[in-house]
Amino acid sequence: MEAQLAKEGWTMGHFPDSFTHSSLGGWIATRSSGMQSDKYGDIADITRGLQMVMPGQVLDLKPTPSASTGPSVREMVLGSEGRLGVITEAWVNVHRIPQERHIYAYFFPNYHAGLDAMREIHESDAAPSVARVSDENETRFSLSTSKKSKGLSKLVAKGFQKVLEMKGWDLDSLCLSFIGFEGSKSHVSYTKKLVDGIVKAHGGVSVGKGPGVLYDQKKFDTPYIRDFLLDFGAMADVSETATPWDMTKEIHDSTVQLVQDAFDEIGVTGYIMCHLSHSYHSGACQYFTFALNDPSENGEASYDKVKKVIQDNFMKCQASISHHHGVGEEHAPWLAQDISPAGVFMQKALFDGVDPGQNLNPGKIIHDGEPGISSNAAK
Amino acid sequence: MEAQLAKEGWTMGHFPDSFTHSSLGGWIATRSSGMQSDKYGDIADITRGLQMVMPGQVLDLKPTPSASTGPSVREMVLGSEGRLGVITEAWVNVHRIPQERHIYAYFFPNYHAGLDAMREIHESDAAPSVARVSDENETRFSLSTSKKSKGLSKLVAKGFQKVLEMKGWDLDSLCLSFIGFEGSKSHVSYTKKLVDGIVKAHGGVSVGKGPGVLYDQKKFDTPYIRDFLLDFGAMADVSETATPWDMTKEIHDSTVQLVQDAFDEIGVTGYIMCHLSHSYHSGACQYFTFALNDPSENGEASYDKVKKVIQDNFMKCQASISHHHGVGEEHAPWLAQDISPAGVFMQKALFDGVDPGQNLNPGKIIHDGEPGISSNAAK
Repeated sequence: MEAQLAKEGWTMGHFPDSFTHSSLGGWIATRSSGMQSDKYGDIADITRGLQMVMPGQVLDLKPTPSASTGPSVREMVLGSEGRLGVITEAWVNVHRIPQERHIYAYFFPNYHAGLDAMREIHESDAAPSVARVSDENETRFSLSTSKKSKGLSKLVAKGFQKVLEMKGWDLDSLCLSFIGFEGSKSHVSYTKKLVDGIVKAHGGVSVGKGPGVLYDQKKFDTPYIRDFLLDFGAMADVSETATPWDMTKEIHDSTVQLVQDAFDEIGVTGYIMCHLSHSYHSGACQYFTFALNDPSENGEASYDKVKKVIQDNFMKCQASISHHHGVGEEHAPWLAQDISPAGVFMQKALFDGVDPGQNLNPGKIIHDGEPGISSNAAK
Repeated sequence: MEAQLAKEGWTMGHFPDSFTHSSLGGWIATRSSGMQSDKYGDIADITRGLQMVMPGQVLDLKPTPSASTGPSVREMVLGSEGRLGVITEAWVNVHRIPQERHIYAYFFPNYHAGLDAMREIHESDAAPSVARVSDENETRFSLSTSKKSKGLSKLVAKGFQKVLEMKGWDLDSLCLSFIGFEGSKSHVSYTKKLVDGIVKAHGGVSVGKGPGVLYDQKKFDTPYIRDFLLDFGAMADVSETATPWDMTKEIHDSTVQLVQDAFDEIGVTGYIMCHLSHSYHSGACQYFTFALNDPSENGEASYDKVKKVIQDNFMKCQASISHHHGVGEEHAPWLAQDISPAGVFMQKALFDGVDPGQNLNPGKIIHDGEPGISSNAAK
């Protein structure tokens, strides 16, 4: 679809990591977000009208830019994960392909400085299309997995390292950031200047366009990395959550610490890393990736424990259980803590009213299974 | 609330015409929009978390910037018009008061040129905070009601008229536009330059800041004008609707024509005028104001007929029955045509599930009355 649009000079601007594995209907049903959401919005913003086939009837929503016609039916379908019907058609926002499109890389001396810069960039008049910063662990992971590639190996070349060391930087706390600029030539140059000033004020340095080109080429590779790890017996997964800006540091630091404590307690080797991936006026999404290697028969229980530590901490920090990966069965045990029991009650009233026989994707979003993770997925 | 925020250097940026008569809970319950929505968003964008007291339980939604946790419960409360509960608390986006804030006035040779310019401005990198253009009738109304004020009388001074006539303009089709710019000094100057270029390309001329100051002072007066007219026996009301950009001209021209035909058919004097008030990526809201003078005993029927002509035409043009005035009882007869019978069914499933006794504001949004307008409101 994006290729067809591109031929005519348009783009939908929706690029989730799963882009090559997923469909428009799936993006809507799971309420997904793409990596350029800062400019193009989440799928909830992009989707205007739609058609959904329901038991005995067909829902038809016109593609209006906005409306005040009661509780939003469009927003009931978004994220319904198949429990209300099958989405068969959709009208989406498209944009002309911008004249210029560049992704620049920056280094920050540490993750907190990066978070402060991302917040200030989002509050400024700049409005970049991508504003992403990796924490220390993810930066080390990126730099080590990219040894062979020209773009990043250049960055960590001895000469550059020396420059950073001379600036007094601890290279172990180095954080890599990607910021995207789109629009007319003059707009890109205007907004980049604003961003460069903010980055500098937070102690960051620009590393140019090279790594950004690489980021662009590799952006859909993440799902393959997980499959690759699973093939080798290492369990890996991700958890993402959105919080107000004030909470971004606390939720990051406590989640990383709690997971490392959990690895120690279980007695396994593991890794946890994170990046800020989507920014909003009031806050941001942070995306945690974790992996652990437990070849024992307790492997699944170990995985569950780590996942539970993360999601429990999201709840403790007043964050959402999911920013763009939906609820499914895995996150369902936390739903009532997230949107309150009355929120689950309202969703259930809707599901039961539309599908009294509970034939449509039962068990998704709200289920009657035991609290737990893999145990529910297995049912 | 806005005054309290202003003291601390913040603004919520939500300024509906009814600002001085309304409350935060009401804005959320009716899914309202303010006149600076191009920058600050509709109330649906501004509202993050909230608390709503429901029969036997309390809904608590945290203020997350975005989430994918099933059908959005937040978006079920927005626009619920009291049918799900009473909104008692809300978390909203606030912004620092911008360094600069200016509203400039422009004239376009006709409304279609104004619409084309608004569309191009919204597609550009400019992103103004207000982008508004009045049609020919509303421009004449504004200029005539503003005779006493310095700002606008200057504009229609003989000298200026001559300049426009020399440019070959038909002064009867003159259209007044207001465009707002906010941000740092350099951002305002950058975006104004972009807008000025687009306005010029569509044959428009800048009239400076004077009328904008006046607009700002008078922006909350509209509700008083209606009350004033009603006191004198003239019936006046408004209808607003949102369409994709492609439909803006057609829905404007056909609505104005059909209403003028209706005035003729009924045999009353009446007036209809319109402005484009809210812009989005995919389209815009147009706001029609109409008034008629029927002192006979058929007054109410005449009003109903005109209102029906307008709403029927919105449906014919695939527009929404309401952009920011909600459904209530007046628009309920068109709801199934707007969001399809399956959409009404979904809303009803939610209302019936939450309030099986139908005690909460019954008759609003969905009612069982006869099609018609005043007849429903009177029940």
